[in-house]
Amino acid sequence: MAHLLSTSSSLKISPGHKPYCQLLNPVQISFPTSLTFQTSKSAFKRLVFQGDSRGKCFKVQATAVPVSQEVSAKSNSGPHQSSNESSKPQRVMVVGGDGYCGWATALHLSKKGYEVAIVDNLVRRLFDHQLGLDSLTPISSIHNRIRCWKDITGKTIELYIGDICDFEFLSDTFKSFEPDAVVHFGEQRSAPYSMIDRSRAVFTQQNNVIGTLNVLFAIKEYREQCHLVKLGTMGEYGTPNIDIEEGYITITHNGRTDTLPYPKQASSFYHLSKVHDSHNIAFTCKAWGIRATDLNQGVVYGVRTDETSMHAELCNRFDYDGVFGTALNRFCVQAAVGHPLTVYGKGGQTRGYLDIRDTVQCVELAIANPAQPGEFRVFNQFTEQFSVNQLAALVTKAGGKLGLDVQTISVPNPRVEAEEHYYNAKHTKLIELGLKPHLLSDSLLDSLLNVAIKFKDRVDEKQIMPSVSWRKIGVKPKTVKA
Amino acid sequence: MAHLLSTSSSLKISPGHKPYCQLLNPVQISFPTSLTFQTSKSAFKRLVFQGDSRGKCFKVQATAVPVSQEVSAKSNSGPHQSSNESSKPQRVMVVGGDGYCGWATALHLSKKGYEVAIVDNLVRRLFDHQLGLDSLTPISSIHNRIRCWKDITGKTIELYIGDICDFEFLSDTFKSFEPDAVVHFGEQRSAPYSMIDRSRAVFTQQNNVIGTLNVLFAIKEYREQCHLVKLGTMGEYGTPNIDIEEGYITITHNGRTDTLPYPKQASSFYHLSKVHDSHNIAFTCKAWGIRATDLNQGVVYGVRTDETSMHAELCNRFDYDGVFGTALNRFCVQAAVGHPLTVYGKGGQTRGYLDIRDTVQCVELAIANPAQPGEFRVFNQFTEQFSVNQLAALVTKAGGKLGLDVQTISVPNPRVEAEEHYYNAKHTKLIELGLKPHLLSDSLLDSLLNVAIKFKDRVDEKQIMPSVSWRKIGVKPKTVKA
Repeated sequence: MAHLLSTSSSLKISPGHKPYCQLLNPVQISFPTSLTFQTSKSAFKRLVFQGDSRGKCFKVQATAVPVSQEVSAKSNSGPHQSSNESSKPQRVMVVGGDGYCGWATALHLSKKGYEVAIVDNLVRRLFDHQLGLDSLTPISSIHNRIRCWKDITGKTIELYIGDICDFEFLSDTFKSFEPDAVVHFGEQRSAPYSMIDRSRAVFTQQNNVIGTLNVLFAIKEYREQCHLVKLGTMGEYGTPNIDIEEGYITITHNGRTDTLPYPKQASSFYHLSKVHDSHNIAFTCKAWGIRATDLNQGVVYGVRTDETSMHAELCNRFDYDGVFGTALNRFCVQAAVGHPLTVYGKGGQTRGYLDIRDTVQCVELAIANPAQPGEFRVFNQFTEQFSVNQLAALVTKAGGKLGLDVQTISVPNPRVEAEEHYYNAKHTKLIELGLKPHLLSDSLLDSLLNVAIKFKDRVDEKQIMPSVSWRKIGVKPKTVKA
Repeated sequence: MAHLLSTSSSLKISPGHKPYCQLLNPVQISFPTSLTFQTSKSAFKRLVFQGDSRGKCFKVQATAVPVSQEVSAKSNSGPHQSSNESSKPQRVMVVGGDGYCGWATALHLSKKGYEVAIVDNLVRRLFDHQLGLDSLTPISSIHNRIRCWKDITGKTIELYIGDICDFEFLSDTFKSFEPDAVVHFGEQRSAPYSMIDRSRAVFTQQNNVIGTLNVLFAIKEYREQCHLVKLGTMGEYGTPNIDIEEGYITITHNGRTDTLPYPKQASSFYHLSKVHDSHNIAFTCKAWGIRATDLNQGVVYGVRTDETSMHAELCNRFDYDGVFGTALNRFCVQAAVGHPLTVYGKGGQTRGYLDIRDTVQCVELAIANPAQPGEFRVFNQFTEQFSVNQLAALVTKAGGKLGLDVQTISVPNPRVEAEEHYYNAKHTKLIELGLKPHLLSDSLLDSLLNVAIKFKDRVDEKQIMPSVSWRKIGVKPKTVKA
């Protein structure tokens, strides 16, 4: 029994709840594994073990969170404790830490010496099951990922499986982990997903808005100095005909001047959910003195970071499908399998883009340089602007060098968006904090194309074309047939 | 049996649901009443009658909506059918039609010749029960209100009891009533209520945002030409240091110009929910071609309209408590019972105000002059600006004329808001459509004070002081003790 529950990566399942992973994908611990059950401070109130004790698998349910004194002690002697950077938080909770950006960020922060906990309900993996999708790259379970990280680096990442929309669960994770910063990636993050049908639209807004409200209440109640680093999106701004500033714009109107939140024009229920979050967070900064940074991120590309490259079990997910795949990543997969690059409409849609190695760098910079109490700080988190046509041209050229014959087709735009427009968005604040951008280069495109080629047997070409229409969304639940 | 279920006001309870009124306040039909059960088209799938057939009351549960051909026929020969105003919608669904503004509006529209249906879950009455509050004025049940209206005017108002967050219910009401316009008052509308505790904050945003999303989906799916007239609030704008425009502002920035949504700075979870609605609606106008008018309403005062004054059973509610009461109405009650007027903080808070007789006029103007398909139109719906101190002075003066000794005290501001600020909000669009404002006059104040004096024995002085703090809101559910 003492070797059963808590792995070396401090697996924690929170009290009284039915996290998704239990319902859908029971926690499975394979033997032989080095497992230690730490009961140094509090004990599990209730444990249920199911399975064959001589066999390979156990189902584990725990109804109280153990607070390990050893972990607490560790944090007090962490690498930042002895440094002079007293403003640098020690303990970072990464909500959504099993996702594309979240996983890479959790590892990066752990590598940098932060005490990291991942909070995730693993619903992103459920979406794949439900929609019949899969990551191009094979990804390990979160439990194996964390164990592998511990084996390689000796560093512990704590794990809390549950839903932040469940406030009792979130309270327990806050009281147990006591974060100094929360990085909040834990939202439904696909615009097409939010436009599949009414129930997904409602789910997206409810999940994202209420989850964020809960995080704000948890900070207010339990950790009022905790810095919220919230992932927003450049899509909150839309495509106005004037320059996009970082969060605020100074307006002179009828002879008077004020600096106001930059007007928002989001173009999917997902993007709108981020607009709602931004307004809610801004209010709590003002009313409660919450310290928050909203990272309005551009489109992320790439798959490898220094940390995820360390072992196959640490490999990040890579989405190329019409629901979760984003432009550049999807183009690389299309080039690899000989599918024409699918440009939506005229292809003049211009957005900010960044390498996933810059995502992790930006988040760390935000944490290391926290907002002041009461401050709602907004950074535009991207490094370069491209139109879709420019990306297609870059991939065509890079593919040619690798001997690929890359074609491009225009497909009817499933979205409602301007296909030719002015776009000039500021992105200086993270540079000022020290961001060293990885600009999109031939070598990165080579590397991305090579990843796509390596795994091209895993590509399901049926998933490539856009399947969700902004205009045709209806109230009837959309199901996926076998 | 044929005389049992459907009253002359076409009571409808929708299929398969447990509406609030059934759980809390079973439909009660008193005898003798002229009741006709119309089964001209479809039939009730299931009916449950409980009670004494010789007595006064029945409980009625129905699990399907009867679509009365007679009602449909009626609408085709309605008063607007023969007029030349072909753009004037015939059938108006008033969501939240049992509330303060909704009830007055439903009657006004019915009087004007529209076919009106009220959709309401009656949860506003539940809030009163739960918080131990009550309207200053005695109000009848929605069923008696509608019967009384029919008795006096011969006009039918249809009634659908249920929750618009329940999409199946909302679908049924749309398919049954087939609205040409939806006036959407059906939201939790109190800023203090949304700041009571975490669960009320979450309820407010979830209820308001998801309810409105459902209305948008219902329009898209079932009535794409239906005009949404949505109640927003002037509070969406906050108190910027520049003039407030009607929904949009033209900004010249770095040599380029665009007209963008006016920046929003809401200051409670309630006000934020309206900001979220506005963004969601704007998107659906663009993406789906929805036609919508957002009425950013100021603070409403008054209780009597031409229609609600016609009979005691039509009397509107009047809130004076610290949760639902608004400044001017509350001051009148305070003056009537000899309670000092409670000015929050410095009293320089300036807002737009309007008489409830103008609320009903504005809504009718919006319906009679609908937005174009794809247009998201914003009107600022108020007629005059006042600071809280100005209102207190007006009530003091008017009270003096009636022999009341009116005192004013400053109480610590429970809200987080600027107490001295610039405020100049435009409100010309409704005037241009023909609004004839009822400006705040001595005679209106006399009348309001007289209403307050008439019902002063019903005042619960414990409810007058502010009980909800913007800063102290916590995660623990707040309960009200006896």
